[in-house]
Amino acid sequence: MLDASRGRAMITSPASAAVFTMVLTQGPVSRVEIARRTGLSSAAVTKAARPFIDAGYLFEMAATERTAPGAGRPASPLAIQPGREFFTGVKITHEELIGVVTDLRADVVATARRPLAGCEPAYVVAELAALADELRGVSPAVRERCHALGLAVSGDVDKDTGLVRYSPFLRWHEVPLGRLAGAATGLTVTVENDVKALTVAEHWFGEGVGASSFALVTVGLGIGCAVVVEDRLVAGARGVAGEIGHVPVGGDGPPCHCGGHGCVEAIAGTPAVVEAARTALGDDALTLDGAMAAARAGDPAAAAVFSRAGEAIGRAMAAMANLIGPERIIVSGDMPGLAAYELFEDDVRKAFTLQAFGAAADCRLVLRPQPFEQWARGAAAVAIQTLFTLRER
Amino acid sequence: MLDASRGRAMITSPASAAVFTMVLTQGPVSRVEIARRTGLSSAAVTKAARPFIDAGYLFEMAATERTAPGAGRPASPLAIQPGREFFTGVKITHEELIGVVTDLRADVVATARRPLAGCEPAYVVAELAALADELRGVSPAVRERCHALGLAVSGDVDKDTGLVRYSPFLRWHEVPLGRLAGAATGLTVTVENDVKALTVAEHWFGEGVGASSFALVTVGLGIGCAVVVEDRLVAGARGVAGEIGHVPVGGDGPPCHCGGHGCVEAIAGTPAVVEAARTALGDDALTLDGAMAAARAGDPAAAAVFSRAGEAIGRAMAAMANLIGPERIIVSGDMPGLAAYELFEDDVRKAFTLQAFGAAADCRLVLRPQPFEQWARGAAAVAIQTLFTLRER
Repeated sequence: MLDASRGRAMITSPASAAVFTMVLTQGPVSRVEIARRTGLSSAAVTKAARPFIDAGYLFEMAATERTAPGAGRPASPLAIQPGREFFTGVKITHEELIGVVTDLRADVVATARRPLAGCEPAYVVAELAALADELRGVSPAVRERCHALGLAVSGDVDKDTGLVRYSPFLRWHEVPLGRLAGAATGLTVTVENDVKALTVAEHWFGEGVGASSFALVTVGLGIGCAVVVEDRLVAGARGVAGEIGHVPVGGDGPPCHCGGHGCVEAIAGTPAVVEAARTALGDDALTLDGAMAAARAGDPAAAAVFSRAGEAIGRAMAAMANLIGPERIIVSGDMPGLAAYELFEDDVRKAFTLQAFGAAADCRLVLRPQPFEQWARGAAAVAIQTLFTLRER
Repeated sequence: MLDASRGRAMITSPASAAVFTMVLTQGPVSRVEIARRTGLSSAAVTKAARPFIDAGYLFEMAATERTAPGAGRPASPLAIQPGREFFTGVKITHEELIGVVTDLRADVVATARRPLAGCEPAYVVAELAALADELRGVSPAVRERCHALGLAVSGDVDKDTGLVRYSPFLRWHEVPLGRLAGAATGLTVTVENDVKALTVAEHWFGEGVGASSFALVTVGLGIGCAVVVEDRLVAGARGVAGEIGHVPVGGDGPPCHCGGHGCVEAIAGTPAVVEAARTALGDDALTLDGAMAAARAGDPAAAAVFSRAGEAIGRAMAAMANLIGPERIIVSGDMPGLAAYELFEDDVRKAFTLQAFGAAADCRLVLRPQPFEQWARGAAAVAIQTLFTLRER
């Protein structure tokens, strides 16, 4: 892989990764404070920060505070230079590419979209390369300092190899997306599951900062989830984790495409909701929009369908909270999914509170609507995190 | 807290904790290998190991292997001196204290039990002190080198403060067990939830060694669980985690004492099983033993009760595997609970396989019967782990 970034080369030890990450995600922060939080010596912090300062990634702010009278030199906090490097992030759906350019702190500096006429991998990769080129062309600084492309895809993704094992909506099986996109763009490519990507953005640059554990639940076509425990995204031993859509809250209820039964997704996923609304209203052609309109207009049968979906989601969230105990749960999703969410948010909260065990009921549920650009930003955040994390072994 | 141990004082940095822990749990291991696995420099490993060698906790084995012809000095693996320090561990039940003494590697060197005539905290603590004294008296070496006492209690325990917030079987509320036991014994006391204690023993000294993630599920009066992710026991933001007994797999099924409904514990906990068997067999005085005997004798109604319990446990394990993706699941419990387990093990496995999502079905279920002495050993393991873990902040 091409890697023209200086940042990569500077992550040479656990200390350099810890120091840079702390300034990136929690800065500005003084060396003394970094030493306190990481357990490193002051000398080790200074040594670790030096190459990042020399290469323009970090800078020393003007001294603003004295720690105490006579306590020696004033503290000069270290801060990130956000424009030192840029990152492209793209969310791939079956009908559109949604792209962003972000700075080092994952703040979006440009966006662009490209419709897709099909899902054939070679075609999608060619469009991807064109979109990445367009995005990098927003300014000479971005073109010069953007070497990494993060991609977010729904489904089963092997981040380590950039392989999309299976993506139902794209109908992809075993597509080596990382390799193909790297060859087409000349950029260092990272590929991650889209829900995990969104979670990485929250973890390093959003609601999750400062929380050592949290979960993100996405509501939409499917019901997705990703969990951060002790500051790490839970990946699952076989790449399976966060499958909240397949927590069996429905008892002997509806069979699910996964082979189980009573799964949340078989009750509260968009297709299940539409199907249930069609049956309840006796209209075989009803759409999700139609069902939502009926529920909003006060049709009790339609309202009951959404209510049941909300209850299933709330009970699954409680099961997750009982098992893992996150500090908070961020409820998110694409916009159509969340449009329905407002119809059942009360049911979600009620079911969650009833089923959560003891103090788990105090877990805060935070609603965060996310346009697709936020998912693309998540892809960029994964590229950033990957770049500045020490590679093990 | 009294802390006569030298070990505690030597854990002065993340490096010293990492080096000692690696030799303790995975040794004998060469310095080169420690450096490779921890990412520390060879010099840092040597520096970190030195105080432990000087104090007799570690020793250098005779050089046994040359890394390669001409590769310089032969590697001398570092090994633990198990008898350098001893640990007392006690599992407290509502009718008995079960105690062990272990060495540094949590190998049991002595056991003793003491029946309890009641659960009043002052009385239990006095009995505890007598038992600890008896255990430490097994040899002069143990008395001289045993300064720590680990306690395992079912229920809601705040390990940091040694407070038992709530233990249903003991009927304890807000009992400052750590402080009371410390005053009565003069030892450094650690208190932990019993399922978590068992999990720590598996993590550092059992089935969990080498697995970066695993879960332990206990089947008995209640259904308990603890989870290790990325090498860390998941504690839960509000002390709630691993509550697999309150995953709602029973749909709108039976109400649970927790306020939820359809909980695993309301279907498969011993009281629920006994209740269901009484109804199924029309015998209001039936005991668990009686129900098991009927099922073993081929009574289909009794067999169906155990089968349903097994299915509920298997589905909850699958929900947990779908969310967290452990490498393996250790199924454990006290002996009476596991005696029933053999009646429904097939149902557990079948339900797990059906409900596990994709590759999660490949998660290995390992059955480990655990007499109460193993739980006491878990308490000692917590004392060991606490002693040799760097205290943060």
